[in-house]
Amino acid sequence: MIVILKENHTPQQFESLCGWLRAQKLDIQVNKGYRQTVLGLLGDTTQLDADLLRALEIVEEVKRVSEPYKKANRKFHPANTVIRVGGAEIGGGGEPVLIAGPCSVESREQILSVAHSVKEAGAKLLRGGAFKPRTSPYDFQGMRAEGIELLLEAKKETGLPIVTEIMDISQLPLFADVDVIQVGARNMQNFELLKELGRGSKPILLKRGLSSTVKELLMSAEYIMAGGNAQVILCERGIRTFETATRNTLDISVVPVLHELSHLPVIVDPSHATGIYRYVKPLAVAAVAAGADGLIIEVHNDPEHAMCDGPQSLKPEVFAEVAQMVRNVAPFAAR
Amino acid sequence: MIVILKENHTPQQFESLCGWLRAQKLDIQVNKGYRQTVLGLLGDTTQLDADLLRALEIVEEVKRVSEPYKKANRKFHPANTVIRVGGAEIGGGGEPVLIAGPCSVESREQILSVAHSVKEAGAKLLRGGAFKPRTSPYDFQGMRAEGIELLLEAKKETGLPIVTEIMDISQLPLFADVDVIQVGARNMQNFELLKELGRGSKPILLKRGLSSTVKELLMSAEYIMAGGNAQVILCERGIRTFETATRNTLDISVVPVLHELSHLPVIVDPSHATGIYRYVKPLAVAAVAAGADGLIIEVHNDPEHAMCDGPQSLKPEVFAEVAQMVRNVAPFAAR
Amino acid sequence: MIVILKENHTPQQFESLCGWLRAQKLDIQVNKGYRQTVLGLLGDTTQLDADLLRALEIVEEVKRVSEPYKKANRKFHPANTVIRVGGAEIGGGGEPVLIAGPCSVESREQILSVAHSVKEAGAKLLRGGAFKPRTSPYDFQGMRAEGIELLLEAKKETGLPIVTEIMDISQLPLFADVDVIQVGARNMQNFELLKELGRGSKPILLKRGLSSTVKELLMSAEYIMAGGNAQVILCERGIRTFETATRNTLDISVVPVLHELSHLPVIVDPSHATGIYRYVKPLAVAAVAAGADGLIIEVHNDPEHAMCDGPQSLKPEVFAEVAQMVRNVAPFAAR
Amino acid sequence: MIVILKENHTPQQFESLCGWLRAQKLDIQVNKGYRQTVLGLLGDTTQLDADLLRALEIVEEVKRVSEPYKKANRKFHPANTVIRVGGAEIGGGGEPVLIAGPCSVESREQILSVAHSVKEAGAKLLRGGAFKPRTSPYDFQGMRAEGIELLLEAKKETGLPIVTEIMDISQLPLFADVDVIQVGARNMQNFELLKELGRGSKPILLKRGLSSTVKELLMSAEYIMAGGNAQVILCERGIRTFETATRNTLDISVVPVLHELSHLPVIVDPSHATGIYRYVKPLAVAAVAAGADGLIIEVHNDPEHAMCDGPQSLKPEVFAEVAQMVRNVAPFAAR
Repeated sequence: MIVILKENHTPQQFESLCGWLRAQKLDIQVNKGYRQTVLGLLGDTTQLDADLLRALEIVEEVKRVSEPYKKANRKFHPANTVIRVGGAEIGGGGEPVLIAGPCSVESREQILSVAHSVKEAGAKLLRGGAFKPRTSPYDFQGMRAEGIELLLEAKKETGLPIVTEIMDISQLPLFADVDVIQVGARNMQNFELLKELGRGSKPILLKRGLSSTVKELLMSAEYIMAGGNAQVILCERGIRTFETATRNTLDISVVPVLHELSHLPVIVDPSHATGIYRYVKPLAVAAVAAGADGLIIEVHNDPEHAMCDGPQSLKPEVFAEVAQMVRNVAPFAAR
Repeated sequence: MIVILKENHTPQQFESLCGWLRAQKLDIQVNKGYRQTVLGLLGDTTQLDADLLRALEIVEEVKRVSEPYKKANRKFHPANTVIRVGGAEIGGGGEPVLIAGPCSVESREQILSVAHSVKEAGAKLLRGGAFKPRTSPYDFQGMRAEGIELLLEAKKETGLPIVTEIMDISQLPLFADVDVIQVGARNMQNFELLKELGRGSKPILLKRGLSSTVKELLMSAEYIMAGGNAQVILCERGIRTFETATRNTLDISVVPVLHELSHLPVIVDPSHATGIYRYVKPLAVAAVAAGADGLIIEVHNDPEHAMCDGPQSLKPEVFAEVAQMVRNVAPFAAR
Repeated sequence: MIVILKENHTPQQFESLCGWLRAQKLDIQVNKGYRQTVLGLLGDTTQLDADLLRALEIVEEVKRVSEPYKKANRKFHPANTVIRVGGAEIGGGGEPVLIAGPCSVESREQILSVAHSVKEAGAKLLRGGAFKPRTSPYDFQGMRAEGIELLLEAKKETGLPIVTEIMDISQLPLFADVDVIQVGARNMQNFELLKELGRGSKPILLKRGLSSTVKELLMSAEYIMAGGNAQVILCERGIRTFETATRNTLDISVVPVLHELSHLPVIVDPSHATGIYRYVKPLAVAAVAAGADGLIIEVHNDPEHAMCDGPQSLKPEVFAEVAQMVRNVAPFAAR
Repeated sequence: MIVILKENHTPQQFESLCGWLRAQKLDIQVNKGYRQTVLGLLGDTTQLDADLLRALEIVEEVKRVSEPYKKANRKFHPANTVIRVGGAEIGGGGEPVLIAGPCSVESREQILSVAHSVKEAGAKLLRGGAFKPRTSPYDFQGMRAEGIELLLEAKKETGLPIVTEIMDISQLPLFADVDVIQVGARNMQNFELLKELGRGSKPILLKRGLSSTVKELLMSAEYIMAGGNAQVILCERGIRTFETATRNTLDISVVPVLHELSHLPVIVDPSHATGIYRYVKPLAVAAVAAGADGLIIEVHNDPEHAMCDGPQSLKPEVFAEVAQMVRNVAPFAAR
């Protein structure tokens, strides 16, 4: 850690700071520069709160040399983490894994129909929302417990493992037979939930928050991993920017950035990123070309009458085309 | 609601859409324009999902004429809501209410000392974090249940009502004697928590999310109010932008914007908005001048050694200056 | 155009507005809704200033049904525009066109060396900065007129057409033999410059501004085209967001969005979008997979000692790899 | 300047870097840390290109200790710069200076009428656009040369000095009798224009770009000052964010931030920041309370029929109220 001191500090301030730092068991190297004095702190600074140092009158700025996430950090775990669910391997370097299904579970007929279609097209996991985070309290809130039961029925019929979103710790008992638990963008920093999921052993699909940085995403993964659960899948689903031509802005650069910083698998959700079904196909192909380990895509048998997010859902036959394009482009991806 | 149709739709599509809309008990007025056909929907469209309509092949765009929030909407409740806590009136048009205290409760001595100081300087409520949302799992997570007990002790000694943050539904029993429950920026769209708080009757201090729009903030207030709890205080605490000179960007315009759109009280948190104590004073004065109903400010007896957010905390004597400046400027505020 | 009126307007206001609109030769269709009155304006509203209408006391909101750009609009020109430069066809649906070269022209030796390398690797145009927009007045400002002469020499030796940036109208005489004139992100709304370029006939490579929307980019293209010059190449080069892991955020969605809204060719600049050479390869491949008509990439024979933007430049051998990957992925692109 | 090296560098790389740095006449202090080596560079590093260093394989990150702007920097010029125009003193610590007038000059009658009104209400300078940057080529582009003549006539009649915007170097001769030349947000990084204005001696009102950071604004001021013209007024006019309730987001924090970093006067434009006249009053008062040295406000005698930006213009009588409120609040401002 680098600590840059203000120009006009007093010797007393300087001694007081150095004494305190040494009490934290850190070695200090002092650089007196042209204008400013800079301290280099040697030792384990991960427990040191940079904000605390910045609070001191004498300090101008503090710079961490090493990142505050450890378990999610590729530096300490060079090999890719591979997450195995059913027959699928996410992050294993093979063909990108397709996760597909409706935004919301709406009925037995709907989820079974979509499950069969996406399986046939090549999806390896089934997604479907039972608990739905909606901006308005007056919008459809999901089938909740009943939705999970229908997902389990679809799993039984098709053999596809299921992914569905949790919104509160109290719902956890209902997720006993769910294969992958999704944490949505709005809950990426629901730290109490992350800690609870860290105590379990199920794979967690962690979506990036609308305005979360790459580092914050990795810190949230770290919350889960710090509890003992190393099975985290990172998911880019678009960030909030000034542009309104698409619902969110897909930050495709995070695919290589996350692969560099972390060993965890990285998947992309082109459906939520754009909010418009016509753009799902090009972005799905682009994400795979950029090196994504998988895609999560909304598919609905009747998108025109879907109860939520219809505009971004693909018809099953279009999903089949996307799946084929993904298989075509995968061998030429930048990985 | 206005529905703009695509240029090249078929008569069948048109009839199918109109039939479906009539089945929703809506009247339709058709405008055939120079290039496009536009439908005006008459009737109660609040339950109609605009996204659902956008999903239709025939539809180019959908525009709501009236806002989807009702209970928070000034149109339907022209008079200001006033929230009374202890002797304080928030939103009553009197002197702006000051809420002050440390970021985190750290010890009995600390919270009592700060409570006495801020009371003397003119604060009407005491704030202090017991449960702390921190980006890193390795940072101080708050004194939790013990922190709330210390706050209650400070309340007993000083008579100041207390405000403290909840992070999960399961913590609710601990908040039985808390006066105002704070929902932090990261939980502004934790809808299960909002619903639960809507079932209670305690005032809720609802902070705007880092990248939440004004409309989303009002929709989250609506979640609480839809459950029966009308006591919501809206709080602007800075949004995330590209600028890094301050931790967040205080969106001061929302003070008049929220007053126009809603009858709920609006307060401002200049401490989190800037993250730097030197800017708290000018922004506190500015917020009051813009018409804020109150301020929530971090004060610490020893900010240089605070366990979190030290850099943005004021010393008690500086807070006393801010309080005096607020009283000076209040009579000339734009309200 | 749709005009939504406020609830509580007077009959006089209503008559005054309708009279004024009829004077603009527009027909008016009136919809009296559940709560509000909505006017549909029929006729040519492109000259009507929506902001002017919004200014009226009686008006709540104004919504354009058709876009204000015409010459750049695919609705009125369904076929793709193809721009031919030397032997290259940009936008023709063939193999994506590669434009490559150094950020800045630094010396005769440098530009000739890079020009030969990129030609060999498959680039069809040579790029190189002679006039350099730099944030600091103390940074290298480009070789200016001398830089253009060196580019022309490189063109002569290799046969590659050249692309270089203009920063002010007064520099235009120096661009007489330049093949494609680039307008940089910072000048995307330098309207006087755009108008002047619209009077010429050279192809213009128009980069999207750091915080410009898709619509603003198309309006800037419209400035050029309104003057008579229809040869505009649109270029996505990253937008400014809160994320700092990359220099800018590549908004890859605009590739399909722009193809839908406009007939103009769309290229992507992965070098400026990320600012880090390691991410250029995956983003180049992704952009092509998403349907880009070309790429503009920084290549330097000695990036470690480049006078600007070294960190984002590729070595010639890495560019050759990228070019090969682009050729591999192109047949499977989503176009 | 601090240079952080990668963990796994070779001794050869290290020697090569140190040799090159010494050749730049810098002293090097080496810190071997727990994991990484950090170099402290002593000497004048203002000419050193940080990006150049970042390009090196061996370098992980580079951090400037001192800012790259010098002439605009308060560190080197502690006293406030005061700009005198006519009888007004901008930045002098007296009453905030009001600059007012129409968005565009539209006619002789209009500009004279507004000029008299704003003078009476207390404005010290008259603003008015002759050259107008408009997003669409089909919108009103200003009266241009004729507009400047009308402004000069208004100046003659009222004695108010005038402020008007330049859009291109070629227009400069027309500005001979203009008192303050405005550089608009879209031209904040039109570096050729800034350099040209730096060669003159007229005060420049420099507006912050839509997505420009505080540092970039100061670097653009530095471009003007580096040429010899020290008369720069900084102007905050709202930045682009995700929020759409206002046209832009007024970043009020920059008032204290800029005062801290620079000695130049800081004014605020609440009209462009919000785009809605109803919010101009609260934001004007807030900006003054935060310590702004002045305000630039749009006033129109007939905002309902203004040729541009009518929605954000005040009627003269409302401006008079704002002016009175500003005078009331000024003595209590945080300065």
